[in-house]
Amino acid sequence: MNEVQYFINGQAGDRVSAAERALHYGDGLFETIRVRGGEPEYLARHMQRLNSGCEQLQFPPLDWALVREELLELAALGQDTVLKYILSRGVGGRGYRPAADRDVTRIASLHPLPHWPAGPQQHGVRTRICSTRLAAQPLLAGIKHLNRLEQVLARAEWDDDGIAEGLMLDQQERLIEGTMSNLFIVNGRELLTPELSGCGVAGVMRSVILDLAVSLGLPVRVAPVTLDDVRSAGELFVCNSLAGIWPVVSIESVREFSIGRMTRQLQVALEAGEDDNRGNWYRT
Amino acid sequence: MNEVQYFINGQAGDRVSAAERALHYGDGLFETIRVRGGEPEYLARHMQRLNSGCEQLQFPPLDWALVREELLELAALGQDTVLKYILSRGVGGRGYRPAADRDVTRIASLHPLPHWPAGPQQHGVRTRICSTRLAAQPLLAGIKHLNRLEQVLARAEWDDDGIAEGLMLDQQERLIEGTMSNLFIVNGRELLTPELSGCGVAGVMRSVILDLAVSLGLPVRVAPVTLDDVRSAGELFVCNSLAGIWPVVSIESVREFSIGRMTRQLQVALEAGEDDNRGNWYRT
Repeated sequence: MNEVQYFINGQAGDRVSAAERALHYGDGLFETIRVRGGEPEYLARHMQRLNSGCEQLQFPPLDWALVREELLELAALGQDTVLKYILSRGVGGRGYRPAADRDVTRIASLHPLPHWPAGPQQHGVRTRICSTRLAAQPLLAGIKHLNRLEQVLARAEWDDDGIAEGLMLDQQERLIEGTMSNLFIVNGRELLTPELSGCGVAGVMRSVILDLAVSLGLPVRVAPVTLDDVRSAGELFVCNSLAGIWPVVSIESVREFSIGRMTRQLQVALEAGEDDNRGNWYRT
Repeated sequence: MNEVQYFINGQAGDRVSAAERALHYGDGLFETIRVRGGEPEYLARHMQRLNSGCEQLQFPPLDWALVREELLELAALGQDTVLKYILSRGVGGRGYRPAADRDVTRIASLHPLPHWPAGPQQHGVRTRICSTRLAAQPLLAGIKHLNRLEQVLARAEWDDDGIAEGLMLDQQERLIEGTMSNLFIVNGRELLTPELSGCGVAGVMRSVILDLAVSLGLPVRVAPVTLDDVRSAGELFVCNSLAGIWPVVSIESVREFSIGRMTRQLQVALEAGEDDNRGNWYRT
C-alpha cells in the first residue's frame, strides 16, 4: 500500500465538511494505531484513551461498538499499515459553544508504515532538546487532542534527518515527552517516566511499557523528570505505537548514551508480549 | 442571507481535504470579519494580524494581494454579514513536521449576523468567570490560531442564555479576555486592558479601541489585570469585531456595574469613527 486511503464515517472518501469543529477549533481527538497482520495493535488501549478524551472534552455519546467494528474492518484492509483515527465534535456554525445534539464525525485513514532505514530500534536514535516549551494545561493533559501547534512548532525546529526526535520540556524545565513519543529513563534498575498531569500525551506504548515493567518485576516510577536526571541516567529511550522502543544514543549538546541492558530487555519483552486486547471493555 | 456559504481557495464549495493540517493539528489561523454594506470592516487590521500569525507559525509565503482581493470580493456578495476566513497550512501526511512546499489552503465562509435581541450594546451584558484557566504559551499568544479547545471548554461551562460572555483568567489568576472577546476596565479616567504576552488573542476591535482612546486623549494602560482591579473598577466592557463594545452590567458572584460615561463615549466614537483601512499595507 503506497497511497493514503481516507474513510469518513465508515465510507471511503477523502473530503470532510468545511464546518467540522476539528477544522475550526481543533475540537477533537485522534489515535495512531499500528496495524500488524491486518489487526489493530493494542486496540483496547487505544479505545480506552479515546474514551477518556471524549469524557474530558465532554463529547456527545458515541457508539463504541461501532467504533471498534470500524477499526477492525479498516485494519483488515491492509496487512502492515498505520491506521489514524480522528474524532471531530461534528459540524457546527461559528462559535465555540458545543451543540449537544451533533453527531461526532469519524475520520479514519490508512497510511503506509513509516520508512526508517537507519534501524532505529536496533541502533538507537539521535535526539535534541526543543526550544519550544509545553504549556501547562491540566484540562487537556494526557489525552491525544487535536490542538497540536506546540508539536508542530517543535518539529519545525530542525531539518537534520539524522535527528529522529526532539525532546520537549515544560515551562518549569521539566522533561515531558518527545514531539511524537514518550520517554523513559533507566536509573540503576529503576525505570522512570515523566508524570503528565500538566501537559503531554499519555501514550499507549507508554502504558504498555509501564505494565510490562511491572510484570517483569522492574521497579517503576512516574514522577517529574529534569535534565539532571537525564545527565545522571544509565539509559534513555523513547517510544510510541509505531516505533515501539527506540534507544536514545545522544541528546545534542547534552550527552551520549550507550544502549543499555534494560532497554534491550524491554524491547525483547515487547516483541514477545501478548497483545492484551480486551475487546469488550466499553461494555463494562 | 440565512444560509452559510463556504469558499475553498476562492471557489464555492463546502468540502475540504481530509488531509488538511488545520483538521489534524489545528495548524492554522482565522479571522472573523464584520461585513458592513458589502465591505469588510477593518480589513487592513485583520490582514495584519493574519500576517503576524503566519510569521509566528512560520507559514509558507502567501499572496497577500490575492487574499485582499478575495476578502473584498466575498464581502461584496452580501450587505451585512460575517466573513470568517481560515488559513490552514495545507494538506499533509501524518506527522507534525510542516512541509515548506505545500500551499496554504484558504477556507472562507459567509454567515448571517448573530441575532442579539437583548440589545447588548445599549443595555449591557451579564457575564461570569469561567473555571477553565488559560495556559501560558508565549509562542502562540496574541495570534488567532486554530487551537481553541480552551475556549470550547470555557464556553461549555454555562447554558444560561442570559449570560452573554464568560471571562477567562490565566493560571496566575490574572484576567485575560472573554471566550470570544477582549475586555477593558475604566478606572477613573484611565482605560486599562490586559496585556497578552502569555496568552489571549489580541483582537482587532481591541486595537481599534486602543487607538481610538489615544485619539480622544484618554490615558490608556496595557498591563496585567486582576479580579481586584475589576472589583474597584468604575466601568467594564468587552469587545470584538462583531459586537463592537458591550458594556458589562454584571459578573456573576463578583459584582454589578452601571454603564459608565467612558464606555458610552467610546461607543459613540466607534460608531462615528472612520475605518482606517490602508489597502496596501502588505506592499510596504
